[in-house]
Amino acid sequence: MTSASSDFADRHRELLEQALVAIRKRDYFSAYPESPSPKVYGERAAADGSAAFEAWRGQTFPVSTPGADGGVATETSPFGFPLEVTYPRVRPEGVDTLLQTAAAGMPAWRDVGPDARTGVCLEILARLHARVFELANAVMHTSGQAFVMAFQAGGAHALDRALEAVAYSYDEMTRHPATAVWEKPGRGEPLRLEKTYTVVPRGVALSIGCNTFPTWNSWPGIFASLVCGNPVVIKPHPRAVLPLAITVQVCQEVLAEAGLSADVVTLAAEDPADGLAATLAVRPEVRLVDFTGSSAFGDWLETHAAQAVVFTEKAGVNSVVIDSTDSFRGMCFNLAFSLALYTGQMCTAPQNLFVPAGGIETDEGHMSYDDVAAGIGAALDKLLGDDAKAVELLGAVVNPGVLERLDAAPSRGRVLVESRAVTHPAHPDAVVRTPLLLGLDLDDGELYAEECFGPVAYLIATPSTTESIETFRRTARERGAMTASVYTTDEGVLAAMRSASLDGGVALSENLTGQVFVNQSAAFSDFHGTGANPAANSSYTDAAYVASRFRIVQSRRHT
Amino acid sequence: MTSASSDFADRHRELLEQALVAIRKRDYFSAYPESPSPKVYGERAAADGSAAFEAWRGQTFPVSTPGADGGVATETSPFGFPLEVTYPRVRPEGVDTLLQTAAAGMPAWRDVGPDARTGVCLEILARLHARVFELANAVMHTSGQAFVMAFQAGGAHALDRALEAVAYSYDEMTRHPATAVWEKPGRGEPLRLEKTYTVVPRGVALSIGCNTFPTWNSWPGIFASLVCGNPVVIKPHPRAVLPLAITVQVCQEVLAEAGLSADVVTLAAEDPADGLAATLAVRPEVRLVDFTGSSAFGDWLETHAAQAVVFTEKAGVNSVVIDSTDSFRGMCFNLAFSLALYTGQMCTAPQNLFVPAGGIETDEGHMSYDDVAAGIGAALDKLLGDDAKAVELLGAVVNPGVLERLDAAPSRGRVLVESRAVTHPAHPDAVVRTPLLLGLDLDDGELYAEECFGPVAYLIATPSTTESIETFRRTARERGAMTASVYTTDEGVLAAMRSASLDGGVALSENLTGQVFVNQSAAFSDFHGTGANPAANSSYTDAAYVASRFRIVQSRRHT
Repeated sequence: MTSASSDFADRHRELLEQALVAIRKRDYFSAYPESPSPKVYGERAAADGSAAFEAWRGQTFPVSTPGADGGVATETSPFGFPLEVTYPRVRPEGVDTLLQTAAAGMPAWRDVGPDARTGVCLEILARLHARVFELANAVMHTSGQAFVMAFQAGGAHALDRALEAVAYSYDEMTRHPATAVWEKPGRGEPLRLEKTYTVVPRGVALSIGCNTFPTWNSWPGIFASLVCGNPVVIKPHPRAVLPLAITVQVCQEVLAEAGLSADVVTLAAEDPADGLAATLAVRPEVRLVDFTGSSAFGDWLETHAAQAVVFTEKAGVNSVVIDSTDSFRGMCFNLAFSLALYTGQMCTAPQNLFVPAGGIETDEGHMSYDDVAAGIGAALDKLLGDDAKAVELLGAVVNPGVLERLDAAPSRGRVLVESRAVTHPAHPDAVVRTPLLLGLDLDDGELYAEECFGPVAYLIATPSTTESIETFRRTARERGAMTASVYTTDEGVLAAMRSASLDGGVALSENLTGQVFVNQSAAFSDFHGTGANPAANSSYTDAAYVASRFRIVQSRRHT
Repeated sequence: MTSASSDFADRHRELLEQALVAIRKRDYFSAYPESPSPKVYGERAAADGSAAFEAWRGQTFPVSTPGADGGVATETSPFGFPLEVTYPRVRPEGVDTLLQTAAAGMPAWRDVGPDARTGVCLEILARLHARVFELANAVMHTSGQAFVMAFQAGGAHALDRALEAVAYSYDEMTRHPATAVWEKPGRGEPLRLEKTYTVVPRGVALSIGCNTFPTWNSWPGIFASLVCGNPVVIKPHPRAVLPLAITVQVCQEVLAEAGLSADVVTLAAEDPADGLAATLAVRPEVRLVDFTGSSAFGDWLETHAAQAVVFTEKAGVNSVVIDSTDSFRGMCFNLAFSLALYTGQMCTAPQNLFVPAGGIETDEGHMSYDDVAAGIGAALDKLLGDDAKAVELLGAVVNPGVLERLDAAPSRGRVLVESRAVTHPAHPDAVVRTPLLLGLDLDDGELYAEECFGPVAYLIATPSTTESIETFRRTARERGAMTASVYTTDEGVLAAMRSASLDGGVALSENLTGQVFVNQSAAFSDFHGTGANPAANSSYTDAAYVASRFRIVQSRRHT
């Protein structure tokens, strides 16, 4: 262990211990305050972070990437302006140099051992936390998330998820002693061997980032791979480079201070036309791939990157089974919030709301199908009626594809709640839209079995809750799902829905009528994705997410 | 939990607790006595086991396989007689029925939960242990292992490895509580959710058996998959069906007693021409594949069974770096034993013995390259000079391929120690051979970089130990290795060899001169394979071997 990395390990030992307890209990734990309030972070933090972000605009980002050639600037804020930050461009012909350099740093990074690597990673998280306002701005202006959400999901919660991944990795790397004495009894003297178990990395890890959650979805894999001894090449989404460029900058700074090769973590920005992710993913040096994005490319990676262990989060269709409720208003508010949050641009946002055509029983009496639609519509109006407040919930449309899908949707069903354009008070060029609620029937499966990523939800009339549950079960199994929820006052329905969720391999939220929403997944307690249906082949964070990122090599000798 | 499975769980709780401690300490632990002595197992055990084995010969094995059509009898004892046991034949057209039936039993097997499943699996191991002499005969007469080895490696040690896999799986399945309360502090009332975490299986597991270690190599994967809730289809090697047929019989008996579908474990025997393994492995229902065998088919599985998590143990070339020793006799004896044990038909047997052309320093003075060859030859003579004793170490040649390779080998190098045919006193038709030691030079890489499975070893003359180590490192990385060993009295050489072993991702045995041999891997302490080089993509047993065999599905609700 180098002296600096030993210092880092000491500095963060208590935090590590807390995280190790939390992953065993899976109850509430958070290490990084989620409130951007000046009371928590100080009076200047917000302004300083904003200024730090603004200072990057139009600049060349000061990170060096082995094998890079020239620069690329590919980001435009969904709030309506180009970032014009230039990053080193990795072309396909630079990949050899990039991967050789990354791999060259591996033996020293391996040899410092799990404790020192954990110290380095926790120091990186601490320094990212010190830049959390800058990161929040960077996430906001690449993903289109509103500021508070970008601060939380892109900052504090992402740090918690990264810490969780580090804690799981540390736990797995240290579940056996580093040495053991094996003493086999026999007739005479026992046979005695001393054994040494060394954690060794898999090889170069590739992290392929996404547009909507550049940190929250990438950090768990990056830090799990890194702490297990693997060099990490980070290939950000071309529209969301800055949050990961800052990440790489901090990683390199801490690695260098610890006397290690800074190139253990590298940024591989690309011109999108180069298709760099596909080139990197099938390289023999690359033994781990983390990906968040489309099912098409995720499936391609799972099939073609056979030399690597591939962790994917792809697309699915998330269902809500509405059977009955003891809080009609609470249900409508909760659903409306889930549909509106970040314009439905979350892999966890509900899409298919199944409701019996004959309506449901509620605390306010029987509600017809149209009453349910109207209730959700009223809740959306209340949440989003004021433009200034609406934009803080909706954020901005992340890319033109979302807008195209939204514009094409109304012709496919009965418009129950219209989408409307919202003018952003601070960013007049931002594209902001409220959710569309479209009425469909059970036999419109060709529509609702496909993910329509963005602010489009379907209220699907079914013959009964039994058919609602069966359709949920089938679409989860066949098309995948990241979340499911149910509203019911009937224990039998609840049991049937729980069973269907196990069959569909999807996390279930039951009767959420308050301030917890189906799209939210809390680090250290909620597993994000299950790996048990086509929407994802892995979960944040369980043992399976980390245990394959390293290997154990033993040696033994007589004592 | 069913009543019977609850009884099983209670009955074996103490054993489980012991195993859970052992996997954390990785020191000596064994639950199943390895000595076939009457003092341990009783006076009648050996004769009863032999009779039970003999009673199978010429019979139809009483196990039913959904979708099977007719029967196959494909086994011949390497000791020189056909077994003529007939098993249900699964043809490609029966695969739909087989997999549908296997999958149909999955929800009930899932729903009994980890404790009940663990109880069932430990009861199966107890009943397999009760039939260990019968199993030893079955392993002996399919693999060609001598009786005591078949009893140990195929019986007691295989049970230990299976128990180890069950313990790791149980540990991973229960590392989180089944329920947790999440309470997030806030300004007013805290947000409170009750969460439930349910272990769900991946899907149907396929276990593809091998000829040489039908139980030792298959049971870890079978029991890891089974205890995690997955139905298991066992496709034995056509030459080694009986040990796995007995396994299936015991599994089905215990499952039925527990009130579960017996078809949760099924036997898929085949006519080899049907290529059943490849058909099964790429089916969408199959989500886990365990394989031991050739690199060609193992690599094919890793590439083509993309829908499944694939665990492989394939071929590699195992190296011994001979630099110096303080016990020349001990070294020669130890190497000779390792070469002779089961005729070198072990994935862990050494093949490439690197020795400086100028010879080595020893406790008996300087020994030239030829002296080293002569020392190993003398040790082989001593071990194998008496036919009756020799066959108890050598066993029999497992199949004609081994004999062909042995016969073709002498022309490729300098014969340092000849292979000779041994007549088995009890089995005159058994094919028994002693090891061949062939002299090669460092530039004969095209020979020694390939696995020559069987009783062929190379004494490779190198310019110096430095080149020996570098060649070991390179061949391990490029061609894979299951084991490595070193003989040296020089701390610098030892350090260099340890470093090379980490780079090559291969377990290292140092200066073994007594009764521990490089080919031996002890459950609960030694990791078998690393997954860090091309010889295997996984290890018996670590967390990575089990953590991907199940998924966690959560549900949550306000309290």
